[in-house]
This record gives sequence, C-alpha cells and structure tokens, in this order.
Amino acid sequence: MIIALKKDTCREERERLITWLESYGVRTHLSEGEFQTIIGLVGDTTRIDTDLISGLEIVESVTRISEPFKKANRKFHPDDTVIQVAENVAVGGGQFQFIAGPCSVESEEQMETVAKAVKASGAGILRGGAFKPRTSPYDFQGLHEEGIRLLLEAKKRTGLPIITEIMDIGHLPLFEQVDIIQVGARNMQNFELLKELGKTDKPILLKRGLANNLKELLMSAEYIMAGGNERVILCERGVRTFETYTRNTLDLSAVAVLHELSHLPVVVDPSHATGHARYVKPMALAAAACGADGLMIEVHNDPPHARCDGPQSLTPEQFDDVVKSVRKVLDALKGA
Amino acid sequence: MIIALKKDTCREERERLITWLESYGVRTHLSEGEFQTIIGLVGDTTRIDTDLISGLEIVESVTRISEPFKKANRKFHPDDTVIQVAENVAVGGGQFQFIAGPCSVESEEQMETVAKAVKASGAGILRGGAFKPRTSPYDFQGLHEEGIRLLLEAKKRTGLPIITEIMDIGHLPLFEQVDIIQVGARNMQNFELLKELGKTDKPILLKRGLANNLKELLMSAEYIMAGGNERVILCERGVRTFETYTRNTLDLSAVAVLHELSHLPVVVDPSHATGHARYVKPMALAAAACGADGLMIEVHNDPPHARCDGPQSLTPEQFDDVVKSVRKVLDALKGA
Amino acid sequence: MIIALKKDTCREERERLITWLESYGVRTHLSEGEFQTIIGLVGDTTRIDTDLISGLEIVESVTRISEPFKKANRKFHPDDTVIQVAENVAVGGGQFQFIAGPCSVESEEQMETVAKAVKASGAGILRGGAFKPRTSPYDFQGLHEEGIRLLLEAKKRTGLPIITEIMDIGHLPLFEQVDIIQVGARNMQNFELLKELGKTDKPILLKRGLANNLKELLMSAEYIMAGGNERVILCERGVRTFETYTRNTLDLSAVAVLHELSHLPVVVDPSHATGHARYVKPMALAAAACGADGLMIEVHNDPPHARCDGPQSLTPEQFDDVVKSVRKVLDALKGA
Amino acid sequence: MIIALKKDTCREERERLITWLESYGVRTHLSEGEFQTIIGLVGDTTRIDTDLISGLEIVESVTRISEPFKKANRKFHPDDTVIQVAENVAVGGGQFQFIAGPCSVESEEQMETVAKAVKASGAGILRGGAFKPRTSPYDFQGLHEEGIRLLLEAKKRTGLPIITEIMDIGHLPLFEQVDIIQVGARNMQNFELLKELGKTDKPILLKRGLANNLKELLMSAEYIMAGGNERVILCERGVRTFETYTRNTLDLSAVAVLHELSHLPVVVDPSHATGHARYVKPMALAAAACGADGLMIEVHNDPPHARCDGPQSLTPEQFDDVVKSVRKVLDALKGA
Repeated sequence: MIIALKKDTCREERERLITWLESYGVRTHLSEGEFQTIIGLVGDTTRIDTDLISGLEIVESVTRISEPFKKANRKFHPDDTVIQVAENVAVGGGQFQFIAGPCSVESEEQMETVAKAVKASGAGILRGGAFKPRTSPYDFQGLHEEGIRLLLEAKKRTGLPIITEIMDIGHLPLFEQVDIIQVGARNMQNFELLKELGKTDKPILLKRGLANNLKELLMSAEYIMAGGNERVILCERGVRTFETYTRNTLDLSAVAVLHELSHLPVVVDPSHATGHARYVKPMALAAAACGADGLMIEVHNDPPHARCDGPQSLTPEQFDDVVKSVRKVLDALKGA
Repeated sequence: MIIALKKDTCREERERLITWLESYGVRTHLSEGEFQTIIGLVGDTTRIDTDLISGLEIVESVTRISEPFKKANRKFHPDDTVIQVAENVAVGGGQFQFIAGPCSVESEEQMETVAKAVKASGAGILRGGAFKPRTSPYDFQGLHEEGIRLLLEAKKRTGLPIITEIMDIGHLPLFEQVDIIQVGARNMQNFELLKELGKTDKPILLKRGLANNLKELLMSAEYIMAGGNERVILCERGVRTFETYTRNTLDLSAVAVLHELSHLPVVVDPSHATGHARYVKPMALAAAACGADGLMIEVHNDPPHARCDGPQSLTPEQFDDVVKSVRKVLDALKGA
Repeated sequence: MIIALKKDTCREERERLITWLESYGVRTHLSEGEFQTIIGLVGDTTRIDTDLISGLEIVESVTRISEPFKKANRKFHPDDTVIQVAENVAVGGGQFQFIAGPCSVESEEQMETVAKAVKASGAGILRGGAFKPRTSPYDFQGLHEEGIRLLLEAKKRTGLPIITEIMDIGHLPLFEQVDIIQVGARNMQNFELLKELGKTDKPILLKRGLANNLKELLMSAEYIMAGGNERVILCERGVRTFETYTRNTLDLSAVAVLHELSHLPVVVDPSHATGHARYVKPMALAAAACGADGLMIEVHNDPPHARCDGPQSLTPEQFDDVVKSVRKVLDALKGA
Repeated sequence: MIIALKKDTCREERERLITWLESYGVRTHLSEGEFQTIIGLVGDTTRIDTDLISGLEIVESVTRISEPFKKANRKFHPDDTVIQVAENVAVGGGQFQFIAGPCSVESEEQMETVAKAVKASGAGILRGGAFKPRTSPYDFQGLHEEGIRLLLEAKKRTGLPIITEIMDIGHLPLFEQVDIIQVGARNMQNFELLKELGKTDKPILLKRGLANNLKELLMSAEYIMAGGNERVILCERGVRTFETYTRNTLDLSAVAVLHELSHLPVVVDPSHATGHARYVKPMALAAAACGADGLMIEVHNDPPHARCDGPQSLTPEQFDDVVKSVRKVLDALKGA
C-alpha cells in the first residue's frame, strides 16, 4: 500500500500516522521529495481500511498494491480448488462441468423431460429457478417451495445434483437438500446473505454483479470464505455496458484474470450474458477455449412457452450440440 | 407495445398470438409490409411479459412504448406525492429537505454533537448508519442494534426524525421506531426485501443501484408500492462509469427525468456520489438548482477519524455553509 | 420504423406527417388507441432521419425496427464477403488469418526479425504502427514516413502484405503501397477520414471505438462502403467499462452479433483489448472458438524494451505457441 | 510515480532500472519488503512513459501519483485562465458566457433570426454547425463552406463572435475568420488535428469524448497547449452509460474536478448531453450552480423542422427564459 501525503505535512502528524500504521504489523518506508512525500507499506495490509486513511487531512491519496482479499487469493493458495458437489461430480481443477436446466421450474413434467435430456447429453448438474428475481413485480416470480420440491423430485429420478438460487436468508431452511446454492448477480453484494452462507457447508455459486469489477467479486467470495465456507464457485455472466444487441456484455477475460488472482473455480453463463439462444453456442465454445471450469446453460423443453427467459433458452437438441462441440474444443486443447 | 414479426410467419400462428394478446384486454392493430409485419398493442400492457413474447419463434423483436410501471407513474397520478415523515417534516412537493448525519453511528457523544449541529443548521432529518454494507469483510460493519439505539437517543434529544439503512428483512423489528427506512444502492433489486417493505407503513428511501437505469429504479419503487406502501422517496447517488476522479458519476439529469416520469419525491446524495468532501458543495448546489426535493449529506464532527467514509464527510461548519448557499439558490429560483 | 404520436394530436398534423413520410417511398399504417396512436412504416427507411421526426411536436417517440445500414447488412448480401489482400492472402469466409507484428515500427532490424518470425509461425499479414495515437503528447508518436518505409522493406523481404494505421487524411499518399489501411478505435467516427477512405480501393480494417456499439461500428463501415469501397474488415478490440484488471473489456459476443448482422469479416485484437501479454493466448483461443475470421496480435522481439505497449506484446516464441493452439481449436471445430 | 517490482527480482536488474529512471532527472527511493519491493519516484515524471516501464519483466505494476499533464495543470498555473474571444467577450475567471445558436446552419434567414434573438437574450457567442458529424452517411452533413459563410454573415450583422466545429485539418483555411474552433467529442483524441490546432492562435473549445475520463480530456488539451496554443476551453457534454432516457449522462462533477485540476475554463453543453429540450433548463441551472464558466445551448427558430437535433433545441423564447433563470442563480451565488 502506498500513501501519498499532501505537500506541507508537519513532521509530527506524519510520525503519528506511521506509528499507527505500524501498529497493524506492517513495516513502513518513507520517501520524501520536492513534490511529494510517500509512505510505502510492506506486509499484510488486508485489514487496513483505505477509507480511514484517505480521510486523514494530511493524506493526498492511497493506492493498494497487493489485493485486499486473502482466502480467495492464489498467492496464499497456489493450487486450484476442486469442489466436490456429489459423489462423482466435482467443479474446478480441470473437471469441466455442464450445469443445465430451465430458467424457472414450471412443472414436474417439464423438470423430468429437461433433466433426463441434459443428463443424457452430459450435464453433471441440474439447474432450475424456484425463486426468480424479476425487474417487474407483475412478472412471474417462481414456484418457490413447490419449485424446490420439483427440483428434488428430478434429482431423485436422475441422480443429478441440483443448483438453485437463494434470494433471502429466511428461505435457507428450504435449501437443506439443495447441492449448490446460487447467489444471483443482484445479490452479489447482499453482504448479510453472504455472511449467512459462510456459515453453511454447501458449495456456493457466486455470480458477478452487473456493475461489479473482479476485485469486488473476489471480496464477496471472501465474505463467504471468512465465515468458514471455502467452497465458492465464481460465475461470469456479463456486465452492463452501453451495448444493446446483447442483454449484457460477456467479459471472458474475467476467466483468465480470475484464474490468475484466485484458486477458486470459474464457470460461465452464456445464456444470461447474451440473452439470445443463438449466441449461446459461440460463447460457450469461447468460454471453454479460454479455460473456464464449466458452463451454466439454460435449457427448456419448449422455449417459446417458457414462463421466463424463453428467448435465451436452448432446446435439448441444441444443448446436445453445444456439449458435443465444447468437448471437441476441450479435447483439442488438452495440454495446450 | 410493438411486436415485429419474422418475415415468413404463417397466418395461423399470427392469429393465435393476436388472440392470446387480446385476452389481456389490449387491442391490436396489424400492419403488413414487404420487409416487416408489425402488431401494435394499445391499452394497459403493464401485465404483459415482454420476455414471454420475444421468446416466441415468430417474433423478431418487442418494443415497449409506454412504461411498465403504474403506481409510480405520473401519468396516472399527476400531482406530486408529499410524504409526511413527522409532524412538521415532509418530503416532496416543494418541501426541500436536508437529511444529514454521519456515515456510521459511532458513539453517543458523536451522535449528539452531530445531531445538534445539523439541526441548528437547518437539517430536518438525521441520518446515521447502524448496518454498513462494506466491500471488505474485514472493514467496520456498523454498531447494529446499538447503533439504532444511539440514533433513537439522538432523536429523543433533538426531536429530529431519523433515517437508517436496512440490509436484511430479519432486522425489520429493530426498525420499529425508525422514521424512514433506507434501501441502499446494492439492495435496490433485493426484491424480497422490497416486497417486505411494501407491507410496512414506513416511508422508504430507495437509492438507485450503481448500474441501474431509471426504469429499473421505478420498477423497484413499484415493488414496494404494489405491496401497499406508496410512501417511497427516490434517491440519486451516482452510477458507475469509467471515470475515476469521483467515486461514482452523479447523474443529475435523473432528477429531471424522474420528476417527469413519476410523482414520487427525488433527493440527491452528493456525498456518496462524489466520494470527496470538496465536491459535495458544488453538487449540492447543482442538485437544488435542477429541482431535487432534498439532499442527503454526510456530516461528521471529526471526518479524519470517522470509522467509515471520512473523505466524503463534511464538518458541521462546512454543512452549515452548504445549507446557506443551497437556500440562496432555492430562494432565487422560487417561481422560476 | 414505429412512430408513437402524442396523445392529443389533431388529425391534420397527423395527415401532414403521413404524407411527408410516404414521399420517401415507404408505406404507413396507422393504429389509433385510447392511450397511444402509432404509425408503422414499412419499406426502406434507411434514408429517413429519426432525429428529424422525433423533433416534431406531435411525436412522442421513434423506434427503428430494421437496421439503418444497408451495404453492410447481411439481409441484402447473404454471403460472407471475402477480401483478397494479396495473391494468396484473403480475409473472411473461413480464411482464418493471423495478423502479427510490433505495436510500433522501431528499426529495420526489429522489423526483419519480427516479420520473419511471425511468417515462420504462420502469420499471413504483417502489422506495425508508423503513426501512433498516444494519450500523452510527450510519449513516442511513431516513426511516421520512415516507419512506412521500414514496413515496405519488411514486406519486400518476406513477401507478407502489410497493414498500418492512418491518423489523418493528409497522410494518405504515404499509404500507396500499404495493403490494408487500419482505422484506429479513436478514429472510428472520424467521418471525414472514413469518406476519404471510401474513395480508395484498399481494404480497410475498421476498429470498434471504445464507447461505440455495434450499430455505430456498422454505420461507420457504411460510410466507407457508401463511398464505393466495400472491402471493409471489422475489428473488435474491447470497449471501455469500469473493470480495471484489463485495459478494456473484450466483447467476444460482438463476433457472433456482427456475423449475424453483416457479411463483412470480423477479426479480434486480444492484445489491445486486454493490455497484458499473459491474457492474449486465452482470448485468442476464445476468439477462434466463437467464429472470428482472424486475429491481430502484437509481437515484439524484445517486449520489455518495446517503445510502446510492451506489456501486451508477445515474444515470437509465445506467438508461435498461440498459432499452434488456435489451429487446434479451428481444426476441432471444422464443421461443428 | 510508484513502481512495484516482482517478488524475486535480482539486485542488478533493479539497479539498472533505477539508474535509467534517474537519467530522467527524478529521484528514487527504494522500500524492500517481504511481499513487495517498491520504487518511489519523486520529481517531474511527466516525460516518463508508464507503458515502457510496466513492460519490463521485473515490474509488477506502475502507479502515477501526480498528473501527467503540465501546461493544463493548476499546480503550475494557479490562476484561472481567461480567454479573450473578442473585444468585449471573454471566457473563464468568472465571466459567465452563453454560447447559443442552431445545431446546424441551414439558411441566411434562420441564422439572422436566431442570432438576433439569442443576442437580445444575452448570448455573447453564436454557435452553428457547418460540418456535422452524423452517425449515418445518409443523414444531413451540413452546408460546409456555405455554412461558414452564413455564420460570418450573421457575425457581421450582430457583432457576435462565432464558434463552429472542425472535422478535418484540411478544412482549416475555411476557419480563418471563425472566433473559436470547436473540436467535437468524437475528435477529442484525433491527435493529428489537436497538434495542428496547437499551431494556430485561435481559442479552441475541446469537447469531452463519450468514453473519455477527465485525465484524457486534459491530456488532449495538453496536446494543443504543447504546440504553443494555450487558449483552450474545456466542454463537458455527457458521457456514455447504460442509461437510455437521456442521450448521454451529463457528468456535472466534472466541472468541479476540472476546476480543481486545471486553470482552463469549463463550459457545459446540456443540449447534447440530455438530447431533449425539456431537460436543458434544469441542467443549465445545475451547471451554473456548480461553477461552470458558461453554457453552450442549441437554439432554433423552428425546432420541429430543424435539419438536425431538433428534439434538443430550444426556441428563442425558451432560451430567453433559461438565461433569466441562470442569471438568478449566478446572482444568488455571488460570493457564496
């Protein structure tokens, strides 16, 4: 951490700041100059609040050099984290996973059809929304408890572990038999929810917020991990830009950056990112090619009549084609 | 609402769509053309889910002409909403309000000092954070219950109604004596929280999310209002852009747009938007000049030692100067 | 095109508007409703200026349904455009091309070394900047005329066609022997330059601007094409967002969208998009996987001592590895 | 400037870097730490290219502490720059100016009507576009030479100095009698144009680019100033965001930030920023309240029939009302 002081700082105030900083166990180095005086901090600065320091009258600016996250940081945990979701299903460390299923759970028949189809194509995890975050209060909000029941039913019939989104801490008891709990983009900085999930022992799939940078995504992962639950899967699903042809702008370089900064697995959701079924395949291939640990894809038996996000859902046949093509890319790149 | 159909749509499918649309009580008009066939919808389209329609195979695109919000819409409620917060304190309809206080509640002494000072300067409402959303799990998270107790203490001593942020539905019982409940930017689309607040009878100050457009802000207000609580105050506090000199980019045209689209009061928070105390005064003046219904400003008795957001906090003296200058602008523009 | 009229429009004004619109050769259809009256336009609306119409007092909003570009539009030109750059070198229609070379031309020795190396690895086109757009007037601005001379020298020795960036119309005579003229991101809407390039017969590589959406990119291509030069190559090189780990945010869905909207070839520049050599390979692989027609990659014999953009330049060895891996992906996806 | 080195840097390489840095006349200070070694640079770092340094293998990151612009920097030029445009017309240093006129010059009659009207209301400078940057090649591009002739005619009749936009260096001779040359947002980083304008002695109004931060705006001003022409007026006109109710997002905090960083005058263009006539007045008032040195406003005698940007043009009566209200704000804040 680098602290640049204002021009005419008196020696005493500067000394007080240095003493206080060193009380956090870091070492400081002072460089005085004609235009600028700088204090360099060396050591573990994770617990130093930059807001506090930049508020001081004598301080001009504060710059972090090392990252403010620790448990999610690859520097302190060089090996890839592999998260065992079910007996034969893992995410991370080269275990490419397909997570597939409908945007929202609609009926027993729908879930059974889709679950069987995606399993046959090679999906390892079944998705389906029971609680749906919708911009409009007048749009379909999901089947709630009944939705989770139908997911568990489909799990029983197919053996696929299931993932579904949580929208409120109060619903946590309903998620007891759910295999992975998803935190949606809009809740990425719902810190009370993250803290509570940090106390569970379930894998958490954490989606990047629409306006959140990767440091903030990792700080949100850190919230969960600081609570004791280190089984976090990161998910890139597009950020909000001025472009309108796609629903969001999928940031695939996030995959490379996250793999560098963190040991946590990274999956990509091309369905929500693009918002159009016809862009899902090219983006799925691209995600696989750049090193994602898996894909999360919306599949519906009858997309035109889906109660939610129909335009971005693949048919089971389209999904099958995506899996086959993705595998070609993965095979081609083995060892590349 | 305008639905553009794909080129080679068969007549039957088109008829089926039209029949279904009309079942929502809207009227439809068809225009067929060489390059494009279009269905125009006239009537109340609020409850028609555009996702559902755009998912249909025969549909190329769907465009909303009228806004999807209703209770928040000025079209159906032409007069400004005035929200009575306490006996002599109202927000909206020309009642310019100053909401002031520290970022986070720290101690009894701090609250008393700040509350008395801002009251003396003319603030009508006291702010203070008890639950603080912080990017890092290692930063100060607020005094929680004790913070609310200290706020209520300050309310008792000064008579100022209080506003404080809620971060989780579970905390709602603690807010019983709070006068305005604030929903922070990160929770603007925490729909479960919004629904629950819609069941209360307390004024809600709803902050715009960092990556949310004004339609989404109004849809979130609609969530609260649809539940029965129509006392919503909108708050512009900056959006995220590529600019880095300021913490966020304050979008003051939002004030004019929101006043046009909605009857709800609009306040501006220049402290969080800019992130620097020295930009608060110019932005406060600008907000008053363009028609905001009030300002929310961070004031701390000792900003350099604030436990949170010190760099953007004004001293009581600076706040007093801002109030005086803002009043000059308001007086000058009376009837302008 | 859809024109929504204001509520209380008088019949005469409406008739005048319709007559005027039909004078452009389009047909109109009127749907009157309780809340909204709508005019639908059917036919070729390319030459109708939406600004003009939305300025009319009786108009509430104007929405384009069909795209405002024509020559670049796949609807009117279904087959992929293939651009023959040199005798055996083409871009587009399945001819995957590697464009490689240093950010800026520095010396004869440098150009020879790099040109020979990238040719050996499989690059079909040599890049090198002679005129460099730099944010600071105090940074290295390129070798200008001498830079182009060195490029031509390298072309002579290796047989590789060359591409280099133009920054001003006045420099056009210097580009006479250049094979592809590049328009940089900052000049994407330098319309006078585009018009002038539309009069030449050289292939133009047009980079997407940092804040430009894909419609604007295609409209800029249309500027060149409307002048008579239809040999335009589009280039995605990242857009500006709030993310800071990468220089820009590479928008790979642009490849899929552009291929759908237009028949023009699309190449990707992962070097400028990410700004870091270590992210070039994953993004190159992703670009190839999602259907790009080629890659533009910065290669330098000695990146740490490059006079410009060293951090994002690959060594010849790294480039060789990228080409080999990209080819694996391309081979795997043949026919996928 | 702060250079963080990679972990296992050998002493020799580090010494070489330090020697090289000091050859630029700066002093360096080294702080070695367990996790990070840092070199602090003190002195004038303007001419040090951060790209060059961050490309070195031993370097992890480079952070600028002081700004890279010099001539535009208030640190080295504390007093406000006042630009004398004509005998009695100045911009900057408290001389609030109204620049008004049509988006594009259309006819002699139009120019005379508008010029007389805006002069009567208090405008000090007449604007009008002769060369129009339009997204579509099929839209009206301006009257070019004839447009400038009509502007000069209006200048002769009213005595108002004129401002008009340049789009290409080649047109410079046509601007000989123009009083202020405008560089549009799309050309803010057309560096060849900026360099050429740096050789003239005319005031330059430089508009902020749609995706450019304030540092880049000031670096572009620096391009002009480094050439010898220090008469630059900065213009905030909105940046591109995800918001769609307004054409762009007007960033009024830019006024405060630019005044702090630079001595150059700052004007605001609420017409282009918002894109709607009805938002021009509130944004004009806000701009005046936060300290802008002037406003640039589009006024047309017949907005619904303007050949360009009609929706955002005020009528002369509306402009008159804006001037009166803005003056009330300015008067109220005198000495505030």
